Amino acid sequence: MAALQPRNALYAQAGGATAVINASAAAVILTARKHRKLIGKVFAARDGLLGMLTEDFVDMTKESAAAVRLLAGTPGCAFGTCRAGLDDYAKDRERWERLIAVFRAHDIGYIFYNGGNGSADTASKLSQLGALFGYSLTVVGIPKTIDNDIVGTDSCPGFGSAAKYIATSMREGAIDLASMASTSTRVFILEVMGRNAGWLTAACGLAAARPGDAPQVLLFPEYPFDEGRFLERVNESVRRHGHCAVGVSEGTRDAAGVLLSISGPADSHGNPQLGGVAPMLAQLVQSKLAHKCHWAVADYLQRSARHIASATDVEQARAVGAAAVELAISGGNGLMPVIERVSSSPYRWKLRHVRLADIAVRERRLPRKYISADGMNITSACRAYLTPLIQGEDVPPFQGGLPIYSRSIHVPVKRRLPR
Amino acid sequence: MAALQPRNALYAQAGGATAVINASAAAVILTARKHRKLIGKVFAARDGLLGMLTEDFVDMTKESAAAVRLLAGTPGCAFGTCRAGLDDYAKDRERWERLIAVFRAHDIGYIFYNGGNGSADTASKLSQLGALFGYSLTVVGIPKTIDNDIVGTDSCPGFGSAAKYIATSMREGAIDLASMASTSTRVFILEVMGRNAGWLTAACGLAAARPGDAPQVLLFPEYPFDEGRFLERVNESVRRHGHCAVGVSEGTRDAAGVLLSISGPADSHGNPQLGGVAPMLAQLVQSKLAHKCHWAVADYLQRSARHIASATDVEQARAVGAAAVELAISGGNGLMPVIERVSSSPYRWKLRHVRLADIAVRERRLPRKYISADGMNITSACRAYLTPLIQGEDVPPFQGGLPIYSRSIHVPVKRRLPR
Repeated sequence: MAALQPRNALYAQAGGATAVINASAAAVILTARKHRKLIGKVFAARDGLLGMLTEDFVDMTKESAAAVRLLAGTPGCAFGTCRAGLDDYAKDRERWERLIAVFRAHDIGYIFYNGGNGSADTASKLSQLGALFGYSLTVVGIPKTIDNDIVGTDSCPGFGSAAKYIATSMREGAIDLASMASTSTRVFILEVMGRNAGWLTAACGLAAARPGDAPQVLLFPEYPFDEGRFLERVNESVRRHGHCAVGVSEGTRDAAGVLLSISGPADSHGNPQLGGVAPMLAQLVQSKLAHKCHWAVADYLQRSARHIASATDVEQARAVGAAAVELAISGGNGLMPVIERVSSSPYRWKLRHVRLADIAVRERRLPRKYISADGMNITSACRAYLTPLIQGEDVPPFQGGLPIYSRSIHVPVKRRLPR
Repeated sequence: MAALQPRNALYAQAGGATAVINASAAAVILTARKHRKLIGKVFAARDGLLGMLTEDFVDMTKESAAAVRLLAGTPGCAFGTCRAGLDDYAKDRERWERLIAVFRAHDIGYIFYNGGNGSADTASKLSQLGALFGYSLTVVGIPKTIDNDIVGTDSCPGFGSAAKYIATSMREGAIDLASMASTSTRVFILEVMGRNAGWLTAACGLAAARPGDAPQVLLFPEYPFDEGRFLERVNESVRRHGHCAVGVSEGTRDAAGVLLSISGPADSHGNPQLGGVAPMLAQLVQSKLAHKCHWAVADYLQRSARHIASATDVEQARAVGAAAVELAISGGNGLMPVIERVSSSPYRWKLRHVRLADIAVRERRLPRKYISADGMNITSACRAYLTPLIQGEDVPPFQGGLPIYSRSIHVPVKRRLPR
């Protein structure tokens, strides 16, 4: 029997960035190095699937330990990302054939696709390539999303850090509000991400240390917005506490399912760009209740705030990256490592894996039991679920007063195919 | 000669909150304790001048060392604040008489008024009370503002921490942008505070570690906005770097001095509420250049972000609080301690003091030499000025994954006068 030859690995990032996705990338690189008999070079594709199609790779193999460490503490997608997906073979034949040609040209034996729901679908399709073309290829997914909406995992790497940032920001902003409320601004509105799932809005609720603490009102995509009830609740909080802090999801909808605010044209999936619900609500509060309002929109800041990353989140991002490599070398094609919660208090978790095909495209929304009866706050069950995910501070190195982050790594791999 | 009897001190906060104003408050309390022969109790007025008028005080004297330490690390105005001012004696006789009655009733011998330009005017007027009514009273100002626009001081406590938050946020948001730019969002706009002075916009510029780094465009209140030149510059950056990150002041105006965006009605000083210039510019970029845009509005988050406070800023806030007490007991009525820069590199500073009457109401704007020739970035002189102010991390204690902050301190002082 001939000795096994090591095969090369290809890592790619897809979908929206997070503060900790590069911790998964670094873990893939470091774990692959422990298996040199099986894994040769580790390449990263630029811009996810697009770099695979255009044969646009960088070589991670020769990066120093220090560079990989710096990468692990850097937010954003260091290799670029995309939202492009892959259609079925029957409909997308040319691209499937191009992919297999690219993988053959670089002797890619392992692919690690790091993304959310949509990316799991792409990864699932990539996992069919080997059998279809008679080529030995193991494709493993790595979960990532600030939206925490991947099915089959208790938590999604990226969410815990965004949640910690949001809860901290809400706690701080509400203290400022309370300072001003006797004489000026009485309402503060913080807009957070989450098109269909209210996990990040729920994270605002962690800012409250005691009942009655800010935020007093939360608006979830899962619970229909009712203008009258919203204004009534704001007024009640102003009467009782002197102020009202509101956390609102960009995806908040009315009872007819119509989004409260749209800020830009639809993307390739037909989803309009969201954003702008906070100023819209501020206008409403000012005109209907005559309370002075302030509003903030966290946007990219919430998913790139590596300076206040959750240590738990960083550890889980690392763990799924490492587990993906172990799964791949044991032949786990079409699988993805996920987090299973063993207990909430004390928090204990372990890794297991799911089939990409089982979780792709599906979406985990906030369960009804996590939303208070009136639809405008979180329950203690929600708090018990969320709290462990923001534990611990993983502070990046600072230099000159600012966190230092890795600059994009550019050791391009020579193309072997015509474009 | 009769032995001196200790007199009571009254501390008050005014104007917008900052992340470090309570560090000044704590320093006043701790320094007063060192002078028990001269200073008896330390009261704090609620909501600044308003609490003085309504005799609404809390007693800080009995707070534990631990409570004062926690206070020092808490953002916001722990005692409430207001934007109310005091008119001249001739026009505002009733309130002046009310104030002296309140101060007499509580044997207030020292007043510490912690605020910005407008508050310095109030403090300056309060400093005339003693002579006018034949009552021994020493009034000392303490500088504070995230806007960095107080005349006579090299830097304003509160600014350094806001600047550190903004520079970090811009650095992080721009990394996210760069991840997405090949296939999706190409422009990111961060809106910061600063009605007339662009110091916080300038702080965005610190995010750039090298020339060409984000942010590529800054829009200052001091430099007239020109739509054509702005769009041209955005496009040029997208062409050259693949993306463009923009920092914009809420107070950006066109050549005719008209604000680009107003979000709410005018306050008591006739200043309209600002905010909303980022979504306005995003709309412009999308419609004219067809680049997908993301935008964030930091609002209160930038002035309450105690979790990423500048250690230099915290130290200066503490120092001016302590110096105010020393100034007061040496009879420095109508004065305010300020920061004097001795050198930028290495950074060295010392305290001196100014007359409140000399700096009240005046406003220090960004000098032309700190703005690049094209009006859309900062110069190296600006960088040399700003960099020392964000140095060092002063991290508050965390518990359960979040920073713990002091809750408002409520040991009310019994009223001695009819309302």
